Amino acid sequence: MQNTPFYQQAFVDYLDAYIQEKEPKSLYDPINYILQLGGKRLRPVLTLMTAEIFDCHYTKALNAALSIEVFHNFSLVHDDIMDDAPLRRGQETVHEKWGLNTGILSGDAMLIMAYQLFENYEPETFQALAKLFSKTALQVCEGQQYDVDFEMRDDVSIPEYLKMIEYKTAVLVAAAMEMGAIVAQVSEEDKRNMYEFGKNLGIAFQLQDDYLDAFGNPETFGKQVGGDIIENKKTYLYLKALEFSSDDDKQQLLHLYSLKPTDQTNKIETIKDIFDTSGSSLATKQVIEEYTNKAFDVLDKLQISEVKKTLLKTFGQQLMNRNV
Amino acid sequence: MQNTPFYQQAFVDYLDAYIQEKEPKSLYDPINYILQLGGKRLRPVLTLMTAEIFDCHYTKALNAALSIEVFHNFSLVHDDIMDDAPLRRGQETVHEKWGLNTGILSGDAMLIMAYQLFENYEPETFQALAKLFSKTALQVCEGQQYDVDFEMRDDVSIPEYLKMIEYKTAVLVAAAMEMGAIVAQVSEEDKRNMYEFGKNLGIAFQLQDDYLDAFGNPETFGKQVGGDIIENKKTYLYLKALEFSSDDDKQQLLHLYSLKPTDQTNKIETIKDIFDTSGSSLATKQVIEEYTNKAFDVLDKLQISEVKKTLLKTFGQQLMNRNV
Repeated sequence: MQNTPFYQQAFVDYLDAYIQEKEPKSLYDPINYILQLGGKRLRPVLTLMTAEIFDCHYTKALNAALSIEVFHNFSLVHDDIMDDAPLRRGQETVHEKWGLNTGILSGDAMLIMAYQLFENYEPETFQALAKLFSKTALQVCEGQQYDVDFEMRDDVSIPEYLKMIEYKTAVLVAAAMEMGAIVAQVSEEDKRNMYEFGKNLGIAFQLQDDYLDAFGNPETFGKQVGGDIIENKKTYLYLKALEFSSDDDKQQLLHLYSLKPTDQTNKIETIKDIFDTSGSSLATKQVIEEYTNKAFDVLDKLQISEVKKTLLKTFGQQLMNRNV
Repeated sequence: MQNTPFYQQAFVDYLDAYIQEKEPKSLYDPINYILQLGGKRLRPVLTLMTAEIFDCHYTKALNAALSIEVFHNFSLVHDDIMDDAPLRRGQETVHEKWGLNTGILSGDAMLIMAYQLFENYEPETFQALAKLFSKTALQVCEGQQYDVDFEMRDDVSIPEYLKMIEYKTAVLVAAAMEMGAIVAQVSEEDKRNMYEFGKNLGIAFQLQDDYLDAFGNPETFGKQVGGDIIENKKTYLYLKALEFSSDDDKQQLLHLYSLKPTDQTNKIETIKDIFDTSGSSLATKQVIEEYTNKAFDVLDKLQISEVKKTLLKTFGQQLMNRNV
């Protein structure tokens, strides 16, 4: 077992070797661009780490890890079109730089390339990886569609919201880990447990992202604090606040969420106050804790040494403290 | 062996059973809509027919056939966005009816669903089908990108154009046939030959589509005759006319292809005259014949009975006479 920076570096080296100039350039240049925009490469690192947890050398999991990263970037390219986002990691988005048609087509090609990365595995492993990949990729599409649909609805329930973030975000983390287990050819039970660990950690991570979007430190969060509030995004914090608030606060919250003022400072502060006084902030912190513990509980069921369980737990804790 | 209408009906029955109401409806309703818009289902019929040519019951090839059809419809949904097309088979396109975001996302989901349709095959067959599918799908994307790029270029060569239609159209016909051969578990040589037969027939078919777009019978062609000329599309007819024309005709052709007049009648007639007098019409008919014969020549190499070779040849001839 190695540490996170080791796997990050090993993955980036492999990615760099994968990236090649190909014709037509107008299709492949945008793909190389988005793949090299950076990021923490958390998902592929989880794939490599999981393989080694089960005594399989990480090099055997590099193609599966790369597939996960290529898919993740495919989803960013198409999501950025849908959100009409001008920037990604501080750089121009693909459709902004090359136009809508290239954004669609380069994204499509990436989805296919993600499948191709399984081709060097033996047929049984190939089929297992591709099946998990397809199931997961379809859930990510469904999650994104729910997210789009929720924008137009004012009756989104907490269970619906949790399902949406599970599909949109958590299942890919889960699949990244299960793929490491598939490559390592472990028991069905161990695969399932790695998946569950990743899924619960992924839900906790996304809920924490919602929380930090409102209450994070602007210097360390990396995104604009208050961004969800500006966009009137129905996050866990918002839905819980609606549930807990007094009638007055509820009306004010609904009213503020119908506005897009030029100066957002007052709106953001007022809403954060309601999140706090309603008890929503506390409830959100509790549910994050709950999913994190659910993830850690799954670890006990794995057929691996205590040392390795501790390593996975430490990684999970670092992730939730955003030290990785 | 059965006749074409039999395979069409068997395929449509299978498709109807595949189509189900699924959540989120906003994602799956557009998918069911486009899949049920109709069409001749030529590609899946070719998959079923090829399986039976090699003594494999067509029912074993239904999932592969359906995958080809789902992929084909995925490409229509995304292409219609890129072409900003309002109509498809006389009905509203998906993005026109449900919006851009749904068009992108439903298309993405279809690409994934196409892969899922291989899951019930044995691992070796699954891997062979998925590999061929990925290679083909990526070429279709590349072909579409070349098509987009060619619009902005005035130096497109005949070999470049032929490569574009091979990638955009012919390889999917080729893959549809090879998939039938893969399911039937025939020799590598027979697979390769079925692929080559389909590819050459697909190129001939697309070149004939270009020809009929200008010179077809408006009552039987199904699309607006002269559509390519109206869109200033650089087809084989146009490129060959540029090559063969006198300087005067060449200048006139270039000039007319820079215009989008309100009344297109004169432009269409003048250009068709240049196609004829330059010898481009004849050259196009010859190259169609050439690729059709190339396809038929491959048949001789196949390890199948003469009766079956005749059946494939008859199907090819019907296709080129547009009786199927």
